[in-house]
Order: sequence, then structure tokens, then C-alpha cells
Amino acid sequence: MLYSVRMRAAKGGDHKLGGRHISGTERLVMPADLAAVFANMLERALNHSRGRADFIQVTVEEIDRAAVQTIRLLPITTIDVADVAAGRREAVEILVSFGVNRQAAIKGIESLSSRQDSMRGAMIISADTGERLDEAGDRGVRVSRMDAADHEALTEELERLALCGAHVREALVLATKVAAAPGMVAELCWSDDPEYTAGYIASKQGYKRLPHLKEYGNFVGGRIFFVDQTCDMTVLADYLERQPVLVATGG
Amino acid sequence: MLYSVRMRAAKGGDHKLGGRHISGTERLVMPADLAAVFANMLERALNHSRGRADFIQVTVEEIDRAAVQTIRLLPITTIDVADVAAGRREAVEILVSFGVNRQAAIKGIESLSSRQDSMRGAMIISADTGERLDEAGDRGVRVSRMDAADHEALTEELERLALCGAHVREALVLATKVAAAPGMVAELCWSDDPEYTAGYIASKQGYKRLPHLKEYGNFVGGRIFFVDQTCDMTVLADYLERQPVLVATGG
Repeated sequence: MLYSVRMRAAKGGDHKLGGRHISGTERLVMPADLAAVFANMLERALNHSRGRADFIQVTVEEIDRAAVQTIRLLPITTIDVADVAAGRREAVEILVSFGVNRQAAIKGIESLSSRQDSMRGAMIISADTGERLDEAGDRGVRVSRMDAADHEALTEELERLALCGAHVREALVLATKVAAAPGMVAELCWSDDPEYTAGYIASKQGYKRLPHLKEYGNFVGGRIFFVDQTCDMTVLADYLERQPVLVATGG
Repeated sequence: MLYSVRMRAAKGGDHKLGGRHISGTERLVMPADLAAVFANMLERALNHSRGRADFIQVTVEEIDRAAVQTIRLLPITTIDVADVAAGRREAVEILVSFGVNRQAAIKGIESLSSRQDSMRGAMIISADTGERLDEAGDRGVRVSRMDAADHEALTEELERLALCGAHVREALVLATKVAAAPGMVAELCWSDDPEYTAGYIASKQGYKRLPHLKEYGNFVGGRIFFVDQTCDMTVLADYLERQPVLVATGG
């Protein structure tokens, strides 16, 4: 048996009542690890660089192990860029190489960089036209029920690539699940953590990390999922929110 | 600073999606106690006599200490009754002595005993007519944001009365908050725990405990709040759900 554990934290009250998003995280854990994961999520919500949360909600749901899909971790490349401008130019090129229309890619980056505050979830945007397709508003579409199959193995794998920290680990797990979604072309993401300037573009072809996609100190981040014309939004949202996925590393 | 921590647990998924209520609890805790309370609530949801929950949600909210009301614990009396029939007859007499119309009291007891499953919250019923006044349906009206001011002192006080366990402690804290609500005449409650047959009637005049208000093995419990004609339902619900209350014992 496995439990899906998700946490969302806000400042100024519940997100649903106008609170500002502070942090959120997702795990799939064994029963024996539940208490430790619970304590860790609480700690994290109360000690975040975006501020101390005054609203925290942790939801635990039992998952049928037979329903879990195991997906191989995306191959990771870091592309060195000098600054945010270079990072965003490079992001467009990568999105285009993954099959996103150039104008749609530019439009996507603009929708993310012009936001006043972070979204908890992602915007779903047409890879052909750059139009937003979901109706989730400022909340965005959430991705739930995923985790690393083996946290130690993933941490070791990342250390080999000189990457460390919860940010990259969690982003990789999420990106690997998202890349396998029906109709997905590519994902673009940069963090809402003001101390974290890196971001990535991911697709089934791989996870391309750019050290500068956002200025230091900026607390507005988010995700865009570029999808193709065949994409059924109901099927996609169901996969993203409900399908349990474990991400496996190594051989 | 203080945190309101509340937990609700269900089997068959989220209550909101049709899951069956397993357990729920409320605390007001100091920051240093958050992690322990978190762990304890989790433990409780996974080891309940109503079944093991497969959905658990814990919500933490920061509370302004200045907003907290402190209310003196109700005086407690246990009235010995031979069986459930005698317990329910006695319950009617106590409700009447607290100002509930006899027919309304009988009607209230019938609404609770005829339910197919427990409600998470309470039914609000007119003390004059026995008509249900709230519109909260099967969910019922919840009471939130209350705790004992001093758990050790309350436990000692209860031990002096030969009462023990989390059930009585939590019921007393809730009943003390409820009795002080604007427009409240009396409360009637029996537990949804199949191993727990006791119940109580409470008002500002006191907490009258009856050892038998429900058959052993029955998992249907709930609460009725009898209110007077002056009662403003919006003001009442706001007090019950939002007003932080600490219940003080002793001298």
C-alpha cells in the first residue's frame, strides 16, 4: 500500500479565500514513512523563503499500488546561459526543437513573466497557437500523485550531475510525469522561490535545465504545459491529478 | 501565537466525494507542539474503531492570540441510567429542564437515532418546535477552533471525576464552547464510536453525562444544537466555526 500526501501552504489564509501561495509539495509514501513526511511538510511550510505560511493543508489518500505507473527519469542536460535574457532566448529555441510553434513559445514565456504572482498549478497552452486552453484561472491545473521510486538513488544520480536540493529533485519527478501525459508537447517552468533563478524545459526527449530563467529575488514562478491539437483536456487533467506515478532512476 | 489544527478522516475517499466519516478532531496548539499534534492526528485517523481511514486532511491555521476567548469548563454530572431506553427518557427530562420544549426534545432525539450514518457536524434545531433550522444537510454545522487551555489540568480534573479518555475531554471542550454560543439553549450528543455508548446533554447550566444513550456496536452518532427563536444562524455559525475558544479548568 502507498499513500499520496500533498501539502499546500499560503499566507493571508486559505488559497481558496485569497491567500498568497507559499509552497506546495507532493509525495507518494509507504505507511511507515507517513509521520516523518508529515512533519517534514509542516517544517517546510513554516520555513519558506517566500514567507511563513499561516495556512497549511495536508491531504493523505490511500493509493492502490496496482494503479501505480513507473516511468523512467528523463535524461538531464544543463545548458549554461549568462543571464535571464539569454536563458529565455535559449528556452524558445528548446521549445521549438521540442515541437512548439515559435510564436506560441514566445507567447507562453510572456504569459508567465507578466504574472503578478505565482500560480499553484500550471497553465495549459496550445503548442500551435499559444492560446490558453484550460479554465483553471489563477489556480491553474495541478499535478498530483507522483514521487521518486527511490529517493536515495535519485539524489545520487543528481549528485553525479552536480545538482542537489529538493527543488531539482521535485521538479524532475513532476516533469517526468508531465512529459508522459497524453497530448503533451513540452513543459516550461521556473520556480516561485525568490532565491532560485533556474528553470527548465522538458519533453519526452529530456529535461533541459537553464541556470537563469528568472531574476534573483523575484517570487513569481509557474509552469506552462504546451499541448498538441489532439489533446483531450479532461483526459489530460485526470492523468495529471489522479494517475499515481513513480519515477525510476538508473539501469 | 497559536495554531488551529483540525483533522477529518474518511473511508472511501474524501467526505466531499461521498466518503464515510471516520474521525475528526480539533486543537488549538502552540507552535512547538504542532509536529506532535500532527503525528497524533494521523495515528488516530489510521487506528480508529470506525475503521482505517483512506482519506485524511489536516488543516493548520495561524490564530491571533488576542482573538481567543477563554471560557470556564462546564460543571460535570454523571447520571446513572440502566440502559439506552432509560438514558433517552432521562435525556428528554434534562433537555426540558434546560428550556427545550418537550416535543422538540423528543423530535430531536428521533432525528438523531433514525440516521443511517453519522454526520461530521451538528443539526441545528428549534428548541421550540423541533424543526431543523440549518441548511448544512448531511454535513451538518461544524464546531472549530477550540481546545483545553491546559490539557494536564483538564485530564486531572476528569480523573477526579473518574472520567478518562480523549472522548470525554474533547466532548467537554466542544460542549463548553457550544453552550456559550449566542442563542444556544442546549446540546445533545452521542458518539459515533461503536465502542462508546455514553452521551450528554449540555447547556450553560452544566454538562450532564449519561452512560447509555446508544447501543454498543452502533456507529451512528451526532450532535443536535437546540436554539431559541432569537438565534441568528449566520452569527451562530460564525461563532461556532471561527471564534477561537480555550476552555479553562479549576479555580
